[in-house]
Amino acid sequence: MTDVFDVKNLVDSVSSLLKMGDKPIGLHQPSFRGNEWKYLKDCLDTGWVSSVGKYVDQFEQELAKFVGVKHAVAVVNGTAALHVCLLLSEVKANDEILVPALTFVATANAIKYCNAIPHFVDSDFKSLGVDPAKLGSYLESISDMRSDGCYNKKTGRRIRALLPVHTFGHPVDLEPLVEIAKRFKLILIEDAAESLGSLYKNHHTGTYGQVSATSFNGNKIMTTGGGGAVLTNDSSVAKLAKHMTTTAKLPHQWAFTHDRVGYNYRLPNINAALGCAQLEQLPHFIEQKRHLADAYRKTLSSIKGVQFFVEPEYARSNYWLNTLILNSSTFAERDLLLEAFHSKNIQARPAWQLMHTLSMYADCPRMDLTQAQQLELKIVNVPSSSFLRENDV
Amino acid sequence: MTDVFDVKNLVDSVSSLLKMGDKPIGLHQPSFRGNEWKYLKDCLDTGWVSSVGKYVDQFEQELAKFVGVKHAVAVVNGTAALHVCLLLSEVKANDEILVPALTFVATANAIKYCNAIPHFVDSDFKSLGVDPAKLGSYLESISDMRSDGCYNKKTGRRIRALLPVHTFGHPVDLEPLVEIAKRFKLILIEDAAESLGSLYKNHHTGTYGQVSATSFNGNKIMTTGGGGAVLTNDSSVAKLAKHMTTTAKLPHQWAFTHDRVGYNYRLPNINAALGCAQLEQLPHFIEQKRHLADAYRKTLSSIKGVQFFVEPEYARSNYWLNTLILNSSTFAERDLLLEAFHSKNIQARPAWQLMHTLSMYADCPRMDLTQAQQLELKIVNVPSSSFLRENDV
Repeated sequence: MTDVFDVKNLVDSVSSLLKMGDKPIGLHQPSFRGNEWKYLKDCLDTGWVSSVGKYVDQFEQELAKFVGVKHAVAVVNGTAALHVCLLLSEVKANDEILVPALTFVATANAIKYCNAIPHFVDSDFKSLGVDPAKLGSYLESISDMRSDGCYNKKTGRRIRALLPVHTFGHPVDLEPLVEIAKRFKLILIEDAAESLGSLYKNHHTGTYGQVSATSFNGNKIMTTGGGGAVLTNDSSVAKLAKHMTTTAKLPHQWAFTHDRVGYNYRLPNINAALGCAQLEQLPHFIEQKRHLADAYRKTLSSIKGVQFFVEPEYARSNYWLNTLILNSSTFAERDLLLEAFHSKNIQARPAWQLMHTLSMYADCPRMDLTQAQQLELKIVNVPSSSFLRENDV
Repeated sequence: MTDVFDVKNLVDSVSSLLKMGDKPIGLHQPSFRGNEWKYLKDCLDTGWVSSVGKYVDQFEQELAKFVGVKHAVAVVNGTAALHVCLLLSEVKANDEILVPALTFVATANAIKYCNAIPHFVDSDFKSLGVDPAKLGSYLESISDMRSDGCYNKKTGRRIRALLPVHTFGHPVDLEPLVEIAKRFKLILIEDAAESLGSLYKNHHTGTYGQVSATSFNGNKIMTTGGGGAVLTNDSSVAKLAKHMTTTAKLPHQWAFTHDRVGYNYRLPNINAALGCAQLEQLPHFIEQKRHLADAYRKTLSSIKGVQFFVEPEYARSNYWLNTLILNSSTFAERDLLLEAFHSKNIQARPAWQLMHTLSMYADCPRMDLTQAQQLELKIVNVPSSSFLRENDV
């Protein structure tokens, strides 16, 4: 037990809340209780498992409808979706992309795939995502506005886009970010990989960016095995996304003409079939997860030195990964809790290692990251599978 | 009817051989008659559909055993496999990679993903792949051997690797290519996307390169929906391949430390499950396809102006796509036949448009491509699904 927070009491409370006895509890596991079997079997029976098939179209249409965008283009995973979003934004080699230091490495990697440069920005305690006020002031100080966009006075490079992340499913404060993007002529791309179904002021995340990316990896709120999607309201952008992700082949009965360097990023039909079944259950998954989050909040309210992270007042979150904010000020304190959870067979994890501390991103430009550094010490995620408290609902 | 080859007789003969009446016949469709449903259902029942799971390991082990390599690393598709092979070969920006002009666009695209430059080489009539003798002479004339490898005298750039393709499943003449790679200090990478199960002198394609790529797309001899694999006998290369394709995360119970720019290229467990079931049937698929090819060969032997392409004498081919070589000398003649097949509901296709004629590759270096240009006029692929003559077997 540290003197900062009550480790034993905390772990026991979580264990008791999850009511799993000594059974190992994963961080986020999927649930298949809908039409998954039916749709997968249909793929086998009809022979349509691969690049073309009715489930891909159906999944794209139903996903777009659910999120409230005009178009969704299904791809092979969330990383591919981010890469395509950046390509669609015409990010060029050596452009800088503003992105939180506190994110999963895929966000930064996708920028590297375009030979562009991540420029790391700070996160706030309210959303766990980009701090709009701090970013605005920072851009005032470093930007040089030219006819073709915003340039970084210090590096001389163009700053092309702003790529905020909805961390652990919680919507970042989008309206001021939209304003900043407009003021500094930046393309806004949402990394909504974790926030499918989360609302910002009654609109879904993924609908504010010019393009947005989401993910259906196995650990997400719904899964296609591996999968992701590009979301946009712009029909020409959607058309280009489909083209780029299907090897940029021009439509023809037999000719193989490709008009640009394309990608093989399309989601196979069999994975889309799984997605159709999961999407039918998504509203239920969100309700279950919000119920679980509420149970965490209530249980932890009496524990010393820890706060359960609650959605910002403007948001209705999917609570993808439930998040504790510890009163910890060293990695050692945080890791003591992680050890304690793991020794009880409860999977828990810290935030990601901040991007600017990874060797391949150590030389990238960055602003003051004090808040992100604090969050890295304080965040612990706890089990969040939708079914964990299903008997209550 | 042209005076070059007898279109009507040819189409009627193929139609009669396929015995499908007026039912549309695709070029290559998968067959699911093994344990596909059992294994997919197991994924749903256990909840393991995504990035980790027993089928990924099992598929990699069984694939390696089947091909006769020490290691197979499953990835999301054949394009990703090619990209990883090039990264594993430490291809750098502006390196040149020798690659046939006659190939699917993914081969050239994967080179571009590394910011490297395709250098197009000619194909021969014997294998439909790289012409070793012509390549050897060409390299003699343009190469400048330095301590760190082969340089192109004309461009000043390093030539890093030789990437031959086993076209339509037919093994390229590997031994002289191995010798050329050695002589000119090139890394040999096999694009075995189409040739899974094909033998070159009793060894599988994919076992001669330092690393090789294969594919399990829906149109291939076996499928995982979408999928591919990197093949190698080098344990350290295999380990790096696994690392690079799983976001380059260092193993740790909870920490997210990544030590290089990684990729999200791993094959989901649900797709690997399909692969395990398909792999069990692969020897049978190969037999069926060789039988179908033999039926084509016999049927077409009496048709004027067309030859059925037969495996080179050193090879035992999987006959992935059955190939006619027409006595045609214009695109118009070739397209007349394609039209005739399509009007009979028989899907047929030409070779791919040669890479150097695509806008994004028009400026790439290339040797004389006379033979590839001839082949582009003469090749027509006809239906090749394994089950097309199953009642005979």
